[in-house]
Amino acid sequence: MVKTRAILEEYKTYVPGRSKKEIAEEYGVAEESIIKLGSNENPWGPSPKAKQAIIDSIDEINRYPESNHEYIKEQIAKYANVTKDQVIIGGDGADELFEVLAKTVIDEGDEFIVHQPTYTYYEYTFKQSNAKAVYATWNIEENKLDVDSVLNNITDKTKVIFLCTPNNPTGGLIPQEDIVRIIEATDALVVIDEAYWEFSEVNNVDLLKKYNNIFIIRTFSKVMGLAGLRIGYGLSNPDFIEKMSRIKPVFSVTVPSQKAVIATLNDEEFIKESTEKAIAEREYLYESVNSIDNIYIYKSKSNYLLMDVRKTGYTAAELTSKLMSRGVIVRDCTSFVGLDEYYIRISVETHPKNEKFIKILKEIVEN
Amino acid sequence: MVKTRAILEEYKTYVPGRSKKEIAEEYGVAEESIIKLGSNENPWGPSPKAKQAIIDSIDEINRYPESNHEYIKEQIAKYANVTKDQVIIGGDGADELFEVLAKTVIDEGDEFIVHQPTYTYYEYTFKQSNAKAVYATWNIEENKLDVDSVLNNITDKTKVIFLCTPNNPTGGLIPQEDIVRIIEATDALVVIDEAYWEFSEVNNVDLLKKYNNIFIIRTFSKVMGLAGLRIGYGLSNPDFIEKMSRIKPVFSVTVPSQKAVIATLNDEEFIKESTEKAIAEREYLYESVNSIDNIYIYKSKSNYLLMDVRKTGYTAAELTSKLMSRGVIVRDCTSFVGLDEYYIRISVETHPKNEKFIKILKEIVEN
Repeated sequence: MVKTRAILEEYKTYVPGRSKKEIAEEYGVAEESIIKLGSNENPWGPSPKAKQAIIDSIDEINRYPESNHEYIKEQIAKYANVTKDQVIIGGDGADELFEVLAKTVIDEGDEFIVHQPTYTYYEYTFKQSNAKAVYATWNIEENKLDVDSVLNNITDKTKVIFLCTPNNPTGGLIPQEDIVRIIEATDALVVIDEAYWEFSEVNNVDLLKKYNNIFIIRTFSKVMGLAGLRIGYGLSNPDFIEKMSRIKPVFSVTVPSQKAVIATLNDEEFIKESTEKAIAEREYLYESVNSIDNIYIYKSKSNYLLMDVRKTGYTAAELTSKLMSRGVIVRDCTSFVGLDEYYIRISVETHPKNEKFIKILKEIVEN
Repeated sequence: MVKTRAILEEYKTYVPGRSKKEIAEEYGVAEESIIKLGSNENPWGPSPKAKQAIIDSIDEINRYPESNHEYIKEQIAKYANVTKDQVIIGGDGADELFEVLAKTVIDEGDEFIVHQPTYTYYEYTFKQSNAKAVYATWNIEENKLDVDSVLNNITDKTKVIFLCTPNNPTGGLIPQEDIVRIIEATDALVVIDEAYWEFSEVNNVDLLKKYNNIFIIRTFSKVMGLAGLRIGYGLSNPDFIEKMSRIKPVFSVTVPSQKAVIATLNDEEFIKESTEKAIAEREYLYESVNSIDNIYIYKSKSNYLLMDVRKTGYTAAELTSKLMSRGVIVRDCTSFVGLDEYYIRISVETHPKNEKFIKILKEIVEN
């Protein structure tokens, strides 16, 4: 047997969320009636312009994609209010860029700081580069970052600090003054994950003008409605972007993905409406769940909300399973470091589906 | 400025091949008349069934792709004559799998052996893991692997040996008995790159039954006609596949890519015809170029051929530029380790374009 790396022993085979098809079969519910509140997607679908652009490019899929992304970078620069040389494109959503970041800055034994709970993929990728995860604290009760827990963990070995705002899965924001305190306290790279920034209506792009040690990461998988096409982008200073570009996968952004990005960015009305609808549905879900006595729901600035279900008498796993048997997919957060076994994340669906979800949830927990 | 890794100093910013659009603009030729013999693609386009499958899935692109690939693995297993648990899927063509391979086996200071010239991406990815490249020799004159140059370079530190068959860019095959000699001489992982195996009509899948230290890598970018969708696959023993799966990107295969793979595999007639046409055009190109006095062309078992152009009085760069000004894109091989500045690779196009290419080539070199 070929010898594999020691770090692999710390990883288990990834167990993916189950598909609508599998759930439909197991629980005997109709596939098309399933309500998916599990993955923070845009439930209203992609821009019609993006769909048309893909169809128009279908005779080109036998050819390699363009790899320089000049035109896409221009369009993203315009959208994000930066210059083209401050942009890098990722071909697996934002996830590819985390890998490229690790390969750009991490040597064996370096440390990275990550507040918990947060998006788990940072640690998944960075540990593969033999970096050591150092945990800071996201204060769950107040749904805010414990800034001192970050500052107190900075050492000579700290190479990267991850800040997720709005934070996944809690929905809370990190105020810009807290971000600045951290940036100014370190030479490490501060990665600001703004995957969900549109739903919060604030962002930190203005910091790029003042600081060289930040990297803002974003995605087309959320409000942009293109999760299935896997496109992300990063914003930083041109020197750092150039360094990353040296070792980034060359052809990883597919032809349909490239066409869809450009068409979506040109559909400003789609982006605006998708954002507004998601915010309205978030508030609807907040108010509706808040009226249920035995569930605590956190205020959110994103397109998902975190629920504490311990007073229902069910664990998150139990309640998730009960919902699934009724055709509702939610995210059991038990596997998030920093959360116990009583948290569930729900993301916004279209209004009729949100109404149906609330009805089913009440039937289960108020019984 | 954030400190980046030392290895980055050995990389330059990737300079991609230029697009049809750029060439059309620079040389004043019509974009649609450009002949692209540069990238070893399927010039007849994707399967019509693949195109339809993409269109049928277009309302799902706002949702994350399935990540377990169970059904795709089943279909590939059937095509490749292995079992499902011997298959792993890559989301950036075969290229993603090279990165996953490096992350599965390479610790800092390990060595990998790669014959030169060959596909350059092996070294591009493996050096990023701080592995040391050790060069073996591809005998250009005879267009075959110098097996002893591999065997003599095996040390305790050798973790991976790359064998490319048919070899890119030379088109020669590695006989199976030579592959077996190497496999039996080492505990290292022998990676057999069969990206172009269909054009050679032989492969090495039967070796999987006998040996645990091999990994066969393939792609949907060549005969399958899906270069723009970035799908590759690997075949090995189930234990090794499971190890790789632990750290592989979770969602990197896009929704359209997944649908297109399945539809293409179900279109056996398309695969057969694409293979036959490519072989016929390869032989046409061989005979045609072979009749030109001052160019030496190598026999090939793939969908591309290598030309030695030194007797034309032009370097590869000069001849490439002359061809480009006439609307023909070829691959200048000067950057391949192991080749000097007089080699050009051409890949098959449709017959009318191959005829036109030959006419233009003759006009340039017989002038």
